[in-house]
Amino acid sequence: MGIGAFAVPAAKQLLAPYAYEPAPLRPRDVEIEISHCGICHSDLHLIDNDWSSSTYPLVPGHEIVGTVSASGTACHLTQGQRVGVGWQRSACHECEQCRAGHENLCSRQEATCVGHMGGFAQRIRTDERFVFALPPILDAAATAPLLCAGVTVFAPLRRWGVRSGARVGVIGIGGLGHLALRFLRAMGCHATAFSSSPDKRQEAVRLGADDAASSTSPREIRAHANQFDFLLCTVPARLDWIAYLQTLKPNGVLCLVGAPPGLLQIPAALLLTGQRAICGSDIGSPAAIREMLAFAAEHGIGAEVETAPMADVNAALLRVRENRARYRMVLTN
Amino acid sequence: MGIGAFAVPAAKQLLAPYAYEPAPLRPRDVEIEISHCGICHSDLHLIDNDWSSSTYPLVPGHEIVGTVSASGTACHLTQGQRVGVGWQRSACHECEQCRAGHENLCSRQEATCVGHMGGFAQRIRTDERFVFALPPILDAAATAPLLCAGVTVFAPLRRWGVRSGARVGVIGIGGLGHLALRFLRAMGCHATAFSSSPDKRQEAVRLGADDAASSTSPREIRAHANQFDFLLCTVPARLDWIAYLQTLKPNGVLCLVGAPPGLLQIPAALLLTGQRAICGSDIGSPAAIREMLAFAAEHGIGAEVETAPMADVNAALLRVRENRARYRMVLTN
Repeated sequence: MGIGAFAVPAAKQLLAPYAYEPAPLRPRDVEIEISHCGICHSDLHLIDNDWSSSTYPLVPGHEIVGTVSASGTACHLTQGQRVGVGWQRSACHECEQCRAGHENLCSRQEATCVGHMGGFAQRIRTDERFVFALPPILDAAATAPLLCAGVTVFAPLRRWGVRSGARVGVIGIGGLGHLALRFLRAMGCHATAFSSSPDKRQEAVRLGADDAASSTSPREIRAHANQFDFLLCTVPARLDWIAYLQTLKPNGVLCLVGAPPGLLQIPAALLLTGQRAICGSDIGSPAAIREMLAFAAEHGIGAEVETAPMADVNAALLRVRENRARYRMVLTN
Repeated sequence: MGIGAFAVPAAKQLLAPYAYEPAPLRPRDVEIEISHCGICHSDLHLIDNDWSSSTYPLVPGHEIVGTVSASGTACHLTQGQRVGVGWQRSACHECEQCRAGHENLCSRQEATCVGHMGGFAQRIRTDERFVFALPPILDAAATAPLLCAGVTVFAPLRRWGVRSGARVGVIGIGGLGHLALRFLRAMGCHATAFSSSPDKRQEAVRLGADDAASSTSPREIRAHANQFDFLLCTVPARLDWIAYLQTLKPNGVLCLVGAPPGLLQIPAALLLTGQRAICGSDIGSPAAIREMLAFAAEHGIGAEVETAPMADVNAALLRVRENRARYRMVLTN
C-alpha cells in the first residue's frame, strides 16, 4: 500500500501530491500515522537544495507527531502509541559518539528527510531508536516543533550548564527563539530577547522574556555589556559579534545554533579577556530529546503554532519563507 | 631602607640598577626576599610598552619565588616561609567574580609589575592574598615559572574538565607549552606537541608528549583530523585555525592562552558541525594556583629552566627575546 505524501520534484519547485512504496519494516522500524508535521527553515533549505544534499523527488518534514500504526518484530513501541520524530533518523550506534549517547554527533548519521521520505505525508517508516514516546499531557500541534526546534535550543542550555538565576540572551525570536524563551522562563533564568522585529520585541515578554532589545542596534546591544552568562543565537545572520561577545560576563558563552554565512571575525583578545567562549550546537541527542519532552510536559511548554491542512502545504511554506508564521507553522492530516 | 632592583627607564631601553622606597606594609602585606624570578614574554611586552599600559621606570618580573622577610599585622604567612607570586597582585574581593573565587576575572585587578614594582629586585611588598606558600619539595628555580606560565596552562585544563585518557594537542612548545606537556603526562592524557622548531619536536617526547608535529604544516595538522578533545594554543601567532579546528573531535575545545594579532576568521559551520568551541583563558585564580602547586608537588613537576644572575638581566632578556631560552629563563639573587 503506497504512502501519500507531498514532494518537490526539483529544486525550488512547488510541492505536489506524490505516492511512494515504503521499504519493508525492519525489526526495529515503526510505521507512524502522521497527525502533525512542523515546518522548519531547514525544509526550505532542502527544497531549494541550498546545502547541495537534496535528491528529488523530495518529501520534506522532520517535526513529526503521530501514532504507531505498525511495528517491526523487535520494537518496543506499540501500536496506537503517540510518538514524535525529529531531524535525525539513524546513526551507526558503534562509534565513540554513539556509545557516549551523542548520536547527533555520529559521522554516519542520516536525516529524516535527506535521502529519505519525510513527514509531509500520511505515514512514515523509521527506526524506533529515533522515535520518541510523547507524554500524554502534551498537545500534538504544539509538540511537533519541539522535536527539532525545541531540542535545538534546549540541548545547549543543558550541555552548557545554564542554571536557574542565569542571565541569558536569546538572539532571534522565531521558531527556535520563542521556545528558548519558554524553556528559560521555566528554568528560572532571566532572559533578554533580541529581535529585529519591533512587534516580536513587544511580544517577547508574553513568550517568557524578562526584557527585549533590538538585535541589530549596536547601541541597544552595547547597553547589555557584561550581562549574560549565556547567549543563544538562533538566527543564521551576520551580526555584530564583537558587540554581542561584549555582552557576556566573564566565563560567558556565545552559542550558535544556526550557521551565519561567511566568516566569524573575532579579535582573540575578546575571548581571552573574561575567558569568553564561542561554540556551536547541533540539534540534540535522543537522550536530550527525551529530557526535553519530559521538561516540556512538566512545565506545560509547547510551541506557539499556526496550523494548516497538509493539502495547503505550498501556502504554508510561503508563509514560513516570508517569516510571517507566528511562531511555527504545523501541517495537519 | 630602599629596595634594590633593575628597572627600564623608558620603553625599549636596557634595564639598569634602580632603588626605590617601598610603601609601608599594610596589615595583609608581606615583604618577600626574592631568590628567583622567571622571565615571561609579558615582561618584554611591558618593557616595550606593547600594551600601552607601562609606566616608567618599570621593574618587570612576576614569576617570583622567595622567603617572607616581613609581614603586616593581619598576615597569615610567617617570616621565613617560602612563597611565590604570579601575575596578579590584587583584586576588589567584592565583585561577583571575586566572590566566586575567580579573582583573575575581577575588572579591578592589578598586576604585580604594571604600575607596581615587580620581581627583578631584591625584595617586593605585596598583598598576601596573592602570595602562595610553596610545598617544600618544589625546587625554587623550577617553580618560579609555574606561578605565571604554569597556572596559565593548568587552569584551563581543569576548568574545561580535561581528564585522564583525553587526547590533547599543545600548540607551541615554549615556556607555557613545555609545562602543559608535563601536566598532561601527569594527568594521564595523550599529548601531541605542535611546534615550528624541528629541535623542539624532537625534544617534545622527553618533555612529556606522546608525539609531535609541525605547527605550521597544513599537511601535518590535517593528519590529526578529528583526534583531539582539547587543543591548547600557547603561541600568540596567526595559525591555520580552520585546520586546527578540524583536529577537534565532536564537542572538542580550542583554548587560546595568548592573543594572536588581528582577527580570528572562522566559518561558523565549523563550530556547529561537531559542536566545537573556541575560547580564551586568562592566567588563573588564586585557588587554581594553589591546586597547581599541589599538583606539581605531587607529580614532581617543574619548569625546565636556564638560570642567570639578576645582574645579567639584560643578557637574559635578550635570550628570551630571541626565543633561545630552553624553556624558561629564571633570574637569581
